[in-house]
Amino acid sequence: MDSLYSLLYQWLPLLLLFFSTSISSATNLHNKIPILSPLRRTNLLGPDDDTLSTPSLSEDFKTYFYEQTLDHFNYNPQSYTKFKQSYVINYKYWGGASSNSPIFVYLGAEAPLVGDIPIIGFLTDNAPRFKALLVYIEHRFYGNSIPLGTMEKAMENETIRGYFNSAQALADYAEVLLYVKDKLSAHNSPVIVVGASYGGMLASWFRLKYPHVALGALASSAPILYFDDITPQNGYYSRVTKDFKEASEHCYRTIRKSWSEIDKVASKPNGLSILSQKFKTCSHLNSSSELKDYLDSMYSAAAQYNQPPDYPVTQVCSGIDKADKGSDILGRIFAGVISYNGNRSCYDTLVYSRPTETMVGWSWQTCSEMVMPIGRGSNDTMFPASPFILEDFIKSCKSTFGVSPRPHWITTYYGGHDIKLVLQRFASNIIFSNGLRDPYSSGGVLENLSSNLLAVYTVKGSHCLDILPAQKSDPWWLVAQRKNEVEIIEGWIKEYYADLLAIRNEKDA
Amino acid sequence: MDSLYSLLYQWLPLLLLFFSTSISSATNLHNKIPILSPLRRTNLLGPDDDTLSTPSLSEDFKTYFYEQTLDHFNYNPQSYTKFKQSYVINYKYWGGASSNSPIFVYLGAEAPLVGDIPIIGFLTDNAPRFKALLVYIEHRFYGNSIPLGTMEKAMENETIRGYFNSAQALADYAEVLLYVKDKLSAHNSPVIVVGASYGGMLASWFRLKYPHVALGALASSAPILYFDDITPQNGYYSRVTKDFKEASEHCYRTIRKSWSEIDKVASKPNGLSILSQKFKTCSHLNSSSELKDYLDSMYSAAAQYNQPPDYPVTQVCSGIDKADKGSDILGRIFAGVISYNGNRSCYDTLVYSRPTETMVGWSWQTCSEMVMPIGRGSNDTMFPASPFILEDFIKSCKSTFGVSPRPHWITTYYGGHDIKLVLQRFASNIIFSNGLRDPYSSGGVLENLSSNLLAVYTVKGSHCLDILPAQKSDPWWLVAQRKNEVEIIEGWIKEYYADLLAIRNEKDA
Repeated sequence: MDSLYSLLYQWLPLLLLFFSTSISSATNLHNKIPILSPLRRTNLLGPDDDTLSTPSLSEDFKTYFYEQTLDHFNYNPQSYTKFKQSYVINYKYWGGASSNSPIFVYLGAEAPLVGDIPIIGFLTDNAPRFKALLVYIEHRFYGNSIPLGTMEKAMENETIRGYFNSAQALADYAEVLLYVKDKLSAHNSPVIVVGASYGGMLASWFRLKYPHVALGALASSAPILYFDDITPQNGYYSRVTKDFKEASEHCYRTIRKSWSEIDKVASKPNGLSILSQKFKTCSHLNSSSELKDYLDSMYSAAAQYNQPPDYPVTQVCSGIDKADKGSDILGRIFAGVISYNGNRSCYDTLVYSRPTETMVGWSWQTCSEMVMPIGRGSNDTMFPASPFILEDFIKSCKSTFGVSPRPHWITTYYGGHDIKLVLQRFASNIIFSNGLRDPYSSGGVLENLSSNLLAVYTVKGSHCLDILPAQKSDPWWLVAQRKNEVEIIEGWIKEYYADLLAIRNEKDA
Repeated sequence: MDSLYSLLYQWLPLLLLFFSTSISSATNLHNKIPILSPLRRTNLLGPDDDTLSTPSLSEDFKTYFYEQTLDHFNYNPQSYTKFKQSYVINYKYWGGASSNSPIFVYLGAEAPLVGDIPIIGFLTDNAPRFKALLVYIEHRFYGNSIPLGTMEKAMENETIRGYFNSAQALADYAEVLLYVKDKLSAHNSPVIVVGASYGGMLASWFRLKYPHVALGALASSAPILYFDDITPQNGYYSRVTKDFKEASEHCYRTIRKSWSEIDKVASKPNGLSILSQKFKTCSHLNSSSELKDYLDSMYSAAAQYNQPPDYPVTQVCSGIDKADKGSDILGRIFAGVISYNGNRSCYDTLVYSRPTETMVGWSWQTCSEMVMPIGRGSNDTMFPASPFILEDFIKSCKSTFGVSPRPHWITTYYGGHDIKLVLQRFASNIIFSNGLRDPYSSGGVLENLSSNLLAVYTVKGSHCLDILPAQKSDPWWLVAQRKNEVEIIEGWIKEYYADLLAIRNEKDA
């Protein structure tokens, strides 16, 4: 496992080289659609973070590979191609098959699995209580589960790349889980799937599509309603704006005014040099957009991952608000940058647009099926206007990848419109958890759909906060949210055991 | 539309020519797996039926074509290929979008749609009561909905043929229905899908996978449990046997003894000529198996379509039982053949194995994913032993089509094991209707899974009897079954209207 991260960073520059054209447009696209990860991974890649720690898993975590079907929905000879899919099992807490002890499954999402395992505290924190087996499955086309072995090879190949989508990924999970249950003779062990962000969407969809494999799902910060026109386009950035406004009205107003200030300076002779100096950028700015995109991403990340004890939005705003007296607007903004990132020799304005594996993969996913219309109008947020125009998006994807997105496929396959009307008498055992400060919560399920399709949210929570490892310093509302989730899941499992017993007694009778 | 049937019968001989090798093995396979059609279509192809009537639809039925996506689960450039999918709408009874009047949808199955429309009485019989729009959608790769235009072209192309499967077909239905609802501004009109036999499986699976498109499903004679080892292999032939035994113990015993009699005569010098003469076969028998397969298929068809007022099992048995005194066993069997088929100049022993479109298509489907392990041991039925041996089946499919079946895919994607445990607290609004005399009912859902996943069966009913047009001569139990189904569906729709109103009121409040 140790070699994964070193491998990843070996091929990143290569990837950059191979995909220089497509990636630049791909990451442009991506910038418009804030990343959906449970943790702010991008920070890992900052220039001051060059001592990247390789996550090392304890010996309790065993890594396996499953010979996975490349195409589950096709029967031509090529679709019989297999690829190796990685999954990890922790047996330490499991009560065993004979007691039908449950299986908690983390559904990997748009990143290498190995990086997620240590941060999915929900599994390890609750395994002893449930005597649960822990299974982590990597999403196809990430980490160690990439057909053809490497992302560049997989993405170069138009045919192979086509199989990189959510329906195939869900079928992968079904196959792996049925295989694992069979191997462990754990036929009657209930499976609870847990996912975060995009992985949270997958978790809720998995329970909906494969109820015979998963008894229930915890879908953390899953914006399953951010498709078509279900959620207003500006939902995401309105929430970012609200977070800043609530933290400090002055901070909010300063940011709001800053964009035209940047443009004003940029339009001066040597304007970009002035800006580069003013913001201590690691390399000379190529455009004012480079700076604006950087700030845009920084504010969004601060809001999305606005978690205790640091509360990054408060950090940014305290920098802005407490800047030296007499600071001008841009001086205050830079003070916010420092406060958020810490004192550095320089600030890397390209940090959010570097092609990580997640960036490359997610660009493809958003350009094929995960079309989330995230935009903003003029004056409806603290940001400059940047509406989502579907035609432009399609054109851009087409020029990057050569194929058009299918913008309505997600709601065709998974639904989303009138979700309460549709699901209140269909399906069960899904928790949609959210923190309302997370801008993605605007596309989440925030009301109970029925007595067992439940919305569990906190007013102050951020993106995927509930599934991160519990800390002593956690605020009471976060502790309460997790307790609530655990008790709901416990209820599902108890009910399942009672059903199992009743059906056995019926058969014996 | 008139041209469809003539076209079909124009290319049938061609098809036979093109596929002579593969078809003969394919139909061999097929013989082992009784056909799953709502009506005994094969009878249409008997030599005395050469005045094939072209089903002509009244002007109330309008035919349309939808530009359908060939591959819904892939984003490579080839998957953007489209094909024309046929669907038919009858507007005559519809109350319109403004009253949210319902939409009844027949999901086409393994046959050209045009032949099914007149026999799906459930839709036309109940449309006035519900003021329902009627929509009939053809299954991909049948009738007028074949990519590349013709079955031979589609089946010759290994890549195209790969997209011929149930998951793709369900996605087709979802796309067509969302499109039709959109065109008619019928956003809030509830959709009830109806399917029969394989189409009944599709209907139940469609409600399970696309609850946001269909409010409910009537799954008539859908053997969704005839996969893996859920249903005993001999379920089908045990039921055929039981039907005959119940009709006449003497008849049953005669058939049971007949197989070795056939073998005995066949092993004599000129044995096949003797048998050919004895059974007045239209062409000289090539083997004793040809005769045995013919009889096997005839008994199975009689049991499967054992419907009032004629009750074919009774017809066969009355021939056997009332044969001239002194008739030997084979004389009695032949009397059964005459009684079932009527007096003919000769009897076509190949009638059940001729490659109709259904035969070709279904052979592919069973050899890819629809692996139904139908077999029988020695002495557990009135037939000679013919166990289903998965390895042999796989080999045979591989040699016919070049690809291996995926025998566990159906239960992986749709479930089936422990169905009550899985679905009693998940899903709603499915009627599993069966007639217990139908041998396929052995793989059907015969107990209520919950208060709204209901098994509605009749003890005397046959395959798909409930969805055929109501007749004045229908027995009371059939009338009662249909009434029950209609009232259940009415309940779903009323509940849906109430939910719709409540949600609107909530929003307005």
